[in-house]
Amino acid sequence: MSKLWGGRFEGNTDEFAEGFQSSIGFDSRMYREDIMGSIAHAHMLGAQGIIPQEDADKIAEGLRSILGDIDAGKVEFSVHDEDIHMNIERLLTERIGDTGKKLHTGRSRNDQVATDFRLYMKRMVDETTERLTVLCGTLVDIAEENTGTIMTAYTHLQKAQPTTLGHYMMAYFEMFYRDIQRFLDCRKRTDVLPLGAGALCATTYPIDREMVAGELHMSGITRNSLDSVSDRDFALEYLAAASICMMHLSRLCEEIILFSTNEYGTLRLSDAYSTGSSIMPQKKNPDMAELIRGKTGRVYGDLTALLTVMKGLPLAYNKDMQEDKESAFDAADTLKACLRVMDGMLKTAEWKKDKLRAGAGLGFTNATDAADYFVKNGMAFRDAHAVVGRLVLYCEQQGKALDELTLEEVRQFAPEAEKDIFDAISLETCVHTRNVPGGPAPEMVREHIRQAKRLLGEL
Amino acid sequence: MSKLWGGRFEGNTDEFAEGFQSSIGFDSRMYREDIMGSIAHAHMLGAQGIIPQEDADKIAEGLRSILGDIDAGKVEFSVHDEDIHMNIERLLTERIGDTGKKLHTGRSRNDQVATDFRLYMKRMVDETTERLTVLCGTLVDIAEENTGTIMTAYTHLQKAQPTTLGHYMMAYFEMFYRDIQRFLDCRKRTDVLPLGAGALCATTYPIDREMVAGELHMSGITRNSLDSVSDRDFALEYLAAASICMMHLSRLCEEIILFSTNEYGTLRLSDAYSTGSSIMPQKKNPDMAELIRGKTGRVYGDLTALLTVMKGLPLAYNKDMQEDKESAFDAADTLKACLRVMDGMLKTAEWKKDKLRAGAGLGFTNATDAADYFVKNGMAFRDAHAVVGRLVLYCEQQGKALDELTLEEVRQFAPEAEKDIFDAISLETCVHTRNVPGGPAPEMVREHIRQAKRLLGEL
Amino acid sequence: MSKLWGGRFEGNTDEFAEGFQSSIGFDSRMYREDIMGSIAHAHMLGAQGIIPQEDADKIAEGLRSILGDIDAGKVEFSVHDEDIHMNIERLLTERIGDTGKKLHTGRSRNDQVATDFRLYMKRMVDETTERLTVLCGTLVDIAEENTGTIMTAYTHLQKAQPTTLGHYMMAYFEMFYRDIQRFLDCRKRTDVLPLGAGALCATTYPIDREMVAGELHMSGITRNSLDSVSDRDFALEYLAAASICMMHLSRLCEEIILFSTNEYGTLRLSDAYSTGSSIMPQKKNPDMAELIRGKTGRVYGDLTALLTVMKGLPLAYNKDMQEDKESAFDAADTLKACLRVMDGMLKTAEWKKDKLRAGAGLGFTNATDAADYFVKNGMAFRDAHAVVGRLVLYCEQQGKALDELTLEEVRQFAPEAEKDIFDAISLETCVHTRNVPGGPAPEMVREHIRQAKRLLGEL
Amino acid sequence: MSKLWGGRFEGNTDEFAEGFQSSIGFDSRMYREDIMGSIAHAHMLGAQGIIPQEDADKIAEGLRSILGDIDAGKVEFSVHDEDIHMNIERLLTERIGDTGKKLHTGRSRNDQVATDFRLYMKRMVDETTERLTVLCGTLVDIAEENTGTIMTAYTHLQKAQPTTLGHYMMAYFEMFYRDIQRFLDCRKRTDVLPLGAGALCATTYPIDREMVAGELHMSGITRNSLDSVSDRDFALEYLAAASICMMHLSRLCEEIILFSTNEYGTLRLSDAYSTGSSIMPQKKNPDMAELIRGKTGRVYGDLTALLTVMKGLPLAYNKDMQEDKESAFDAADTLKACLRVMDGMLKTAEWKKDKLRAGAGLGFTNATDAADYFVKNGMAFRDAHAVVGRLVLYCEQQGKALDELTLEEVRQFAPEAEKDIFDAISLETCVHTRNVPGGPAPEMVREHIRQAKRLLGEL
Repeated sequence: MSKLWGGRFEGNTDEFAEGFQSSIGFDSRMYREDIMGSIAHAHMLGAQGIIPQEDADKIAEGLRSILGDIDAGKVEFSVHDEDIHMNIERLLTERIGDTGKKLHTGRSRNDQVATDFRLYMKRMVDETTERLTVLCGTLVDIAEENTGTIMTAYTHLQKAQPTTLGHYMMAYFEMFYRDIQRFLDCRKRTDVLPLGAGALCATTYPIDREMVAGELHMSGITRNSLDSVSDRDFALEYLAAASICMMHLSRLCEEIILFSTNEYGTLRLSDAYSTGSSIMPQKKNPDMAELIRGKTGRVYGDLTALLTVMKGLPLAYNKDMQEDKESAFDAADTLKACLRVMDGMLKTAEWKKDKLRAGAGLGFTNATDAADYFVKNGMAFRDAHAVVGRLVLYCEQQGKALDELTLEEVRQFAPEAEKDIFDAISLETCVHTRNVPGGPAPEMVREHIRQAKRLLGEL
Repeated sequence: MSKLWGGRFEGNTDEFAEGFQSSIGFDSRMYREDIMGSIAHAHMLGAQGIIPQEDADKIAEGLRSILGDIDAGKVEFSVHDEDIHMNIERLLTERIGDTGKKLHTGRSRNDQVATDFRLYMKRMVDETTERLTVLCGTLVDIAEENTGTIMTAYTHLQKAQPTTLGHYMMAYFEMFYRDIQRFLDCRKRTDVLPLGAGALCATTYPIDREMVAGELHMSGITRNSLDSVSDRDFALEYLAAASICMMHLSRLCEEIILFSTNEYGTLRLSDAYSTGSSIMPQKKNPDMAELIRGKTGRVYGDLTALLTVMKGLPLAYNKDMQEDKESAFDAADTLKACLRVMDGMLKTAEWKKDKLRAGAGLGFTNATDAADYFVKNGMAFRDAHAVVGRLVLYCEQQGKALDELTLEEVRQFAPEAEKDIFDAISLETCVHTRNVPGGPAPEMVREHIRQAKRLLGEL
Repeated sequence: MSKLWGGRFEGNTDEFAEGFQSSIGFDSRMYREDIMGSIAHAHMLGAQGIIPQEDADKIAEGLRSILGDIDAGKVEFSVHDEDIHMNIERLLTERIGDTGKKLHTGRSRNDQVATDFRLYMKRMVDETTERLTVLCGTLVDIAEENTGTIMTAYTHLQKAQPTTLGHYMMAYFEMFYRDIQRFLDCRKRTDVLPLGAGALCATTYPIDREMVAGELHMSGITRNSLDSVSDRDFALEYLAAASICMMHLSRLCEEIILFSTNEYGTLRLSDAYSTGSSIMPQKKNPDMAELIRGKTGRVYGDLTALLTVMKGLPLAYNKDMQEDKESAFDAADTLKACLRVMDGMLKTAEWKKDKLRAGAGLGFTNATDAADYFVKNGMAFRDAHAVVGRLVLYCEQQGKALDELTLEEVRQFAPEAEKDIFDAISLETCVHTRNVPGGPAPEMVREHIRQAKRLLGEL
Repeated sequence: MSKLWGGRFEGNTDEFAEGFQSSIGFDSRMYREDIMGSIAHAHMLGAQGIIPQEDADKIAEGLRSILGDIDAGKVEFSVHDEDIHMNIERLLTERIGDTGKKLHTGRSRNDQVATDFRLYMKRMVDETTERLTVLCGTLVDIAEENTGTIMTAYTHLQKAQPTTLGHYMMAYFEMFYRDIQRFLDCRKRTDVLPLGAGALCATTYPIDREMVAGELHMSGITRNSLDSVSDRDFALEYLAAASICMMHLSRLCEEIILFSTNEYGTLRLSDAYSTGSSIMPQKKNPDMAELIRGKTGRVYGDLTALLTVMKGLPLAYNKDMQEDKESAFDAADTLKACLRVMDGMLKTAEWKKDKLRAGAGLGFTNATDAADYFVKNGMAFRDAHAVVGRLVLYCEQQGKALDELTLEEVRQFAPEAEKDIFDAISLETCVHTRNVPGGPAPEMVREHIRQAKRLLGEL
């Protein structure tokens, strides 16, 4: 069986090399996009009179039957046909005869693959933002139930100040909502039709590119044919947004793993999202969170791969660019699966409210408020900071919390202390008085939740 | 001299460790942002009655004098004060006395550094897009002069089809214009005020965050204090956009280097952007293009660095994040310099029009049009493709171009050929008949240029 | 069907999560290593009297029958059993009954997977160095035939000095020979047995680790059980060596692509390693070289992935580390395939000796020798350099090579020139007089070839 | 002031471009290597009679005086002279007149920079392994004092089994000792002299490369001149080894950060390696450990940078390669500083032995031994695993540890339990009975320590 491009060739491709350069193993997943693109192209060829209308109809019908058969699992692809485009063209010709050969009029594999890939990545963007939206909703739900659940907030993993679980969850809402925005920005630049660019210098046929874009629901057409077949920015942008999103997931995973330890003990994952050990009977491991954290590396690797591939390539298409798809597909598969598992894990996890609150009472999380107390009573902040620093040292030696000291003990360090200091440094006071926009005070978090719901509703 | 945070500490920081963790060596370049942020904060503290209005005025005045002195090169920073924030606070207190200590009321270094860094990166975005706009203008200028300059277009670095230099330049315009769009999208997410987030849980003072955002010309405020001090997405997004932009530059550099070789000989860089060899007297090397191509690795490395830093960090601030600035600064410096050098190199380079045209006549760039000729005379495309393939093989053996064959020679392969085939495969015909949107036909490129000028004007 | 670790669990694993965390999809390729490791472990358990000798024999026999069946393609693995270890343990128990359950005595999946992975990567190292050795042999063969084939050597892609194709090929020999050395160094650190480390703290059974290492032909045992189950350095080291090797391949590919262009025209790839275009009949593209160059990004991405995965993981095993295998496997598959294709491509390529020599005559590659001529006649080098620089400028204006000038023309710039200058700057003189070790003079290259053959013979 | 290579140039370098391409800003740190290399070269030129012996002596003397002045801080370098090589050549000529110009005979900047860079990186390797050796010694010291200090060992950050601090420290010893081995392997390939390769094709002068290698204490000479000026493997190999070493440091840092939390509380860093907060008086942050962990990203970025730079570069030298030094220097500086800070931090940290032991008693770390107890009394392992799993569930509900149960309680789940079970699951038994090579039993760890000291002594 000879190649479609075999005219000037006298020898056959080496068999191992043929397998090496074939892409059907991974680009077959774009079969739907390839066929829809071809149907739109055929319609346009007919409408423009480039091929007879009846040929166009016959082609479109043939393509739809192929689509149905692939959907039904009835088609097996061949490595010899190199890629999804050649495979489908061959199938078409087998089914409708020589008319099928007219489909490739006025286009090339270079603009065809660019079109398929854009359509596919647009779908990936949509599926990714959908999963992100679900996850954001789950975070908002947990937040809403926990605007009053006091817990520790950390910096440097050292106990810093008290906050609420609601406030904590809304921090992650913000990260994932930014991720959605980044994917939407990426979508704008993905949703543009390159078909009509031909191999690299467009075509001499009087094609109507806008018509094809319209049928494929794309927002416009590309403006330069050389760029159209060379541009993989949209895939890189997806990979960059996915890397940042995985980074956010890795942070949440790190905390889930920490909170699930014996030492923290503030989170209990459900059995459905935990696994055991073949040896150690007591083990219940947060495998899913660890695996998501690990898969961050995988997506970073995908980004590195495509950035490297594209470095220093001259215009226009080069075969190196065939390496674009596997990295983008792997990143999309990985990210979507991670988002789904994260959502399930959060939905079924149990927060230990007693432990969260008890933990917030340790580690002097109210020390800032103690300092503020003295400032409000006239001490300079730097002096108040130093006084409370010494109080903390004393407490550590005594094994006490600040609010377990007697007023006398406090006065040894700060004679100006009064009894109301204990109200001022209660965890509830600490949280409720931080009532500026963005702060942990329940009224502020509830306001943020309202806003978040509105934003999610607008998507 | 004791640390501002020394209250609970009994021992001093190890001297080597102090240098190791100090950031003044690189964050001092944000001095303007730090001071402008502090002035806005002071104004707000005064307006809200958190500190007396006269104290606020005194602080603002003191800060302005420090700004003037730094601008004038009169200030030396100290490693002992760790970072730009502490350095300036100390300077302020030295100048205006204890009133200076009130500046830090209601804020923390965590939200302060996040503010400075956002303001700085916003400036970097603006300076980057400015340089990109200049470069885009240069590309459009070259294109405008060369809508009729015929040259070879390549795929796989093999001669593919004829195009024009104008068409070629506009491909790069498209890439850099997309880069501008990406930076503008990044700007939206950078231009948000985190000040007021405090150390991580906001503050108990009745601050007015919107007022500060207004004075700093930022478009809004962040919505969650934990996220405000933890978020470095804006820097990652800059690094990702910069990496993609460097990738585009590396492609253009690759072509500049190729076109400047003895073998291509179609481009002559000016002496101002070339260097010689200490040994080989004949050498004139395209060093600038090589160096830009090489610096692509540097910016990719900056992106890898920050993605790695942020992976798996628990909330909120962690010291690891101090590594955010050097990578972002290095990427911005590198990208801006590369854009400037690229612009100068292009502006002063000389395109060898004769060589460009002569090269397009080699390598059978008109073979597609030969095949199209036969298709238009009724042959099936796959058959025409095969016929021309064999013609090419024959030409290679004879050392001739397609248009150097006699009609008789052509007819040995395709009896249906007529004399008009030679018109059909002239380079001019090849270029002019590719007149679909995005194609190389001069009218199409001129239309694109008009559009490009409008887009640049809108920036 | 319940999990082996199900004792303390009350709920089942979520179905999607189960698939998400299963590794059988990729670790099944280590089935041979898993079984050989288990047989050695069983032998040792019997020899040490930890299990009855007859049980050990029964287990070993059962495992060998499973190995035979997998080799014969008769076994289907189950996602429910998570990984290759659990799958084989289940198969064993199905075949030989409860005795099979004794196999896991004194070991854990953690040390088992570390053992399998090391054995597998040792095999990958061996297969990689084997392919590298073949490629090195091919380079030496081409070099041997071309110690007199004059061609251009470049710096900055500008013609620099004349050399020979033999000298050129031997530069690549050096790179790939260093790669072999790196893989051999990696092998030393891979070839160490971790079995016996148990889950992380070894075992209370009186196992004999040295005996197992001996049966598996490993050079020794690991020295700390926590490290044994946590260490993935050997995989990272493979990935780093593979990245450097791909970099070398990418350089050779870049040159193959360049030399195959119409502009250079010095290399003709065989049809077996070229492909055509579906549209452009004249095209013959160096797809294999481009694809190898592109796959460099893929391997870099694999390295980035695993480096990221391992960053910041506490001791000992974490599930993140399950991401170790796919990146290492992908890199090994990719590198081995690239080496094979490169070897075939080189073996079948045709070097255009006339074009190589003609090209070396252009671009003033003998300018250094012209300067050296004047130095040998008493001129200071910097002055000679300047004189020849001006001669080159003159030649460019006249469209002549240096050796096409008349003696009179030369004397206008350097009165001290004599007729013997033309001998001194002939390409043959240029090459033959560079006869220091490492230089292009045929005698030197032949000496290098002898050395290379000896080194390859020693592997 | 004109360039050394200015002969064929008519215009000057653009001023901004000149700064852009200058490397003196970072390669000046190789001044010692540059001068020592030049002295050796001069000696050889004299010995071979290529220049008069007295000129050679004069040059060597001049160079030594320059070295002294640079060491004394008396020399200022100039951007106009581009790099350290040109700067020193100019200084030399200023000092000894035209004789200085003879130094460059028979060499080029390309082989010169390759020589300098190799000599410098060899020094970096030596300084790195020295720091690693010190750190390994510190780990061994801590281990030696703590072979009996019981603590928890983790997998998945869940409590797994009891071990000792000695065993734990020796796991890190193994990692860093492997790092040393990798750097030593890298050293072998770095320690080879490229001088004599000239610009790319060696030289026509009768130089003696072995003599120069001998004077510079290098182990041999490179074998191909094209490769000699193109090869940067040694820098990549350093970067890869440094990345793996930083990964190890990041793991240790993660644990130091965890152990220093309020929740773990098992490690107390000294004040000398901790910092406080400007706002929160109670804070004592493990900044150094966080910063080292963060700098892992930086070194990964350096590796990515150079791998990217080298991808696809044709032979021989290209200006892209000027980007090699900053990444290698940055990685070496970073790694050496991190190793030093880590060593100081560990030496001054205090391990809370009571807390370590108490923590090991929680989380059922002895559950494996409980299962082993039943196995030794005849139960099948999988059944014993299930029984103990249920015991653990019961304990969790009762808030008890396994060894806090009564025999009656145990017998409800496993009637075969006897009183000796409590001995069998004591932490001491757990640790002491794991006495296979690599295990935590004190005798095994002490044996490992002896071995480690011997290995360190051999370095």
